[in-house]
Amino acid sequence: MKRENDRGFEHAAGNGLLSRRVFLEGAFVAGATGAAGGMTSAAAEPLPVPGWMKQPGAALTAYGQPSRFEAKVVRNVPAPPNPATQGIGTARTPLHLLNGMITPTGLHFDRSHSGTPDIDPDQHRLLIHGLVKRPLVFTLEALSRYPMVSRITFLECAGNSGALNAPQAAPLDVQAIHGLLSCQEWTGVRLSTLLDEAGVEPAAKWVVAEGADAAAMSRSVPLAKCMDDALICLYQNGERVRPSNGYPVRLLLPGFEGNMNVKWLRRLKVTDAPVMAKDETSKYTILLQDGKAWQFVFPMEVKSIITHPSPGLALKGPGFYEISGLAWSGNGRIRQVEVSADSGASWTPAALQEPILPKALTRFRAAWEWNGGPAVLQSRATDDTGMVQPSRAQFVAARGLRGLYHYNAVASWRISEKGEASNALA
Amino acid sequence: MKRENDRGFEHAAGNGLLSRRVFLEGAFVAGATGAAGGMTSAAAEPLPVPGWMKQPGAALTAYGQPSRFEAKVVRNVPAPPNPATQGIGTARTPLHLLNGMITPTGLHFDRSHSGTPDIDPDQHRLLIHGLVKRPLVFTLEALSRYPMVSRITFLECAGNSGALNAPQAAPLDVQAIHGLLSCQEWTGVRLSTLLDEAGVEPAAKWVVAEGADAAAMSRSVPLAKCMDDALICLYQNGERVRPSNGYPVRLLLPGFEGNMNVKWLRRLKVTDAPVMAKDETSKYTILLQDGKAWQFVFPMEVKSIITHPSPGLALKGPGFYEISGLAWSGNGRIRQVEVSADSGASWTPAALQEPILPKALTRFRAAWEWNGGPAVLQSRATDDTGMVQPSRAQFVAARGLRGLYHYNAVASWRISEKGEASNALA
Repeated sequence: MKRENDRGFEHAAGNGLLSRRVFLEGAFVAGATGAAGGMTSAAAEPLPVPGWMKQPGAALTAYGQPSRFEAKVVRNVPAPPNPATQGIGTARTPLHLLNGMITPTGLHFDRSHSGTPDIDPDQHRLLIHGLVKRPLVFTLEALSRYPMVSRITFLECAGNSGALNAPQAAPLDVQAIHGLLSCQEWTGVRLSTLLDEAGVEPAAKWVVAEGADAAAMSRSVPLAKCMDDALICLYQNGERVRPSNGYPVRLLLPGFEGNMNVKWLRRLKVTDAPVMAKDETSKYTILLQDGKAWQFVFPMEVKSIITHPSPGLALKGPGFYEISGLAWSGNGRIRQVEVSADSGASWTPAALQEPILPKALTRFRAAWEWNGGPAVLQSRATDDTGMVQPSRAQFVAARGLRGLYHYNAVASWRISEKGEASNALA
Repeated sequence: MKRENDRGFEHAAGNGLLSRRVFLEGAFVAGATGAAGGMTSAAAEPLPVPGWMKQPGAALTAYGQPSRFEAKVVRNVPAPPNPATQGIGTARTPLHLLNGMITPTGLHFDRSHSGTPDIDPDQHRLLIHGLVKRPLVFTLEALSRYPMVSRITFLECAGNSGALNAPQAAPLDVQAIHGLLSCQEWTGVRLSTLLDEAGVEPAAKWVVAEGADAAAMSRSVPLAKCMDDALICLYQNGERVRPSNGYPVRLLLPGFEGNMNVKWLRRLKVTDAPVMAKDETSKYTILLQDGKAWQFVFPMEVKSIITHPSPGLALKGPGFYEISGLAWSGNGRIRQVEVSADSGASWTPAALQEPILPKALTRFRAAWEWNGGPAVLQSRATDDTGMVQPSRAQFVAARGLRGLYHYNAVASWRISEKGEASNALA
């Protein structure tokens, strides 16, 4: 397996995967990108002066927006079944058009159950009641007085990647399959601080969180999670939480399925039992082959996806490519991501981008010299609890093909001889 | 000095500064926020149902924007001296209205010298020439083929906080004084990769970077920095670089003064000497008391600022407050931030928010019980090279009051008995 290509790269696995030295040490051999890389050109000097250098540029602005040339980099919003339900559904993050670990605030995925309410922060209140010594009501200003913490963490909808739990491979891209996934810096007050102030009664075991949307979206959260790393978030990537992500305040339960991170949070009721809300009974439970279902499966399991290349990002001829993607675990840090170009016959470790944070997206990168032949690209993540992302065969054997939630099997992109990538159930 | 207040907090320094245990261990005593904290209220149950819960919310959107109630959270754009120069100047980040370490992309500060060009990425080219074996021209697509790296790093204009280098304290706020400072995740190709491919000649010592704006903004960069951690950036907080920050490609020199991180990068000329551009001779040089000037002072020195409380964020009566701010160093990681509430007579270490990254903003937090009397709040950072932020007296003794650039002395907010904060030169 170990051999070098004609430019001195060490081959690390089958079908052209190179050593991650390219990333870890910055080792890269001149000319490696071939025809698509730097173009040597005497005629290019001097560069022609473009029109935009011949006149003053645009004025300073109060709030920046993307270039008009990036208008395609948007969340995908499916047409609603009828105009009355246009706020119900999903808007998915275009992960194949992004890079790094941070999701732009305007592109954080949105899963809403009755649209985005237009909340006046001065009128909004957060009530903590139930099995507490002192029921408390907080204004936003009151919340702002408490000690805060920040953390970079992912949110993933429990239904993300569910399209892969199907007998046939649908012709979908990264955004359509995996786009219910984002990662940002969240800042807020520890929920434990507020519960301590309210005084939790000994009988308390759960906390029911309710949103201030028209769905009054509700979920039951174990008290232990609330006392561990739960945050009452006021800020998202530095600024106040965006309307579609829960303005003015949302619950953040790092690593837990997205739906539980209740947006527009208005009420936390401390209870001795779960409330059995719609979204923890008929929805967001894991249907098994025998018709039974798992309830209260909270952390999103270890997982990874390749974002580049992927459907819509065609390879332009044989040569060097960076295989890049994202890995995460709701149970801790990513320890390793392995990449295969031959449908899992051989694997090599990818380079992981620092900082590798618990319950955050981690960008991985591998070096690939595509020979122009067919290939199947896969990634497989391991977290620091030792959990390894299952193969599709393992996942289906355990769970069957009926489940919508918590699909975390290894995903595959088939690369054609034309360089086109497509969803495959390899 | 060590004593406890009536709620069991350990006093850590004069004038009400408490132990950072509040942040490090989540220790917080019920009722500590006093009147401004949670309001006990039986009448609050049940919460009234607000109007926005009685109708479906807004539709899903392709690209999210802040709440209309946050319209004040914008960069400040001074009125231009005349309409022809509306793109020349600064738009400053409202750091006092943000939290965490990441700056929202739309609020990254902007310092432009001839406005923001409207660049078509398909037409844009990057030329590497001069003392190289193979001059190279890159399209954006060609750049996208190279191995990438991501890093979270600050950018600070060399002129940031220059308003404090004055004999009198101007009535300015955080944004006006310190707002030429931002921190984001940047992703791009190592410049060393491209220079290796071009083949740098032995005589080379500098690289002249030129922007594609109407100013053709140019700076000379030591070759050693280009071969160290310089990046040719395509992405900013996950999405393509914003127009006002250099779309479609900018130079990133982590830790170096903002002006050198050339936006709209079109040309890198490898040379044996600096080009002596306007912005490294008449501007961006450090004028000393004796009329001489320092040239080529590149890294931004260790520094910190308090963002909360600060002018415009009045304290609402005595009680608990979080003192929060940002610390950074162009030479490495922040090792410590100390906070004082008595104009530097006594100090206590603040809690530092993880992850503490090199050449990135680090959020610090300290617990303060304001007794309602006058106070002067200060912060003092130390980086992992051992450099300590100088006092104002030390800074002025060394540099005088004529310099505009690289002001990094300890800054002060005076708190009045009304709870109002104001700029002070303590």
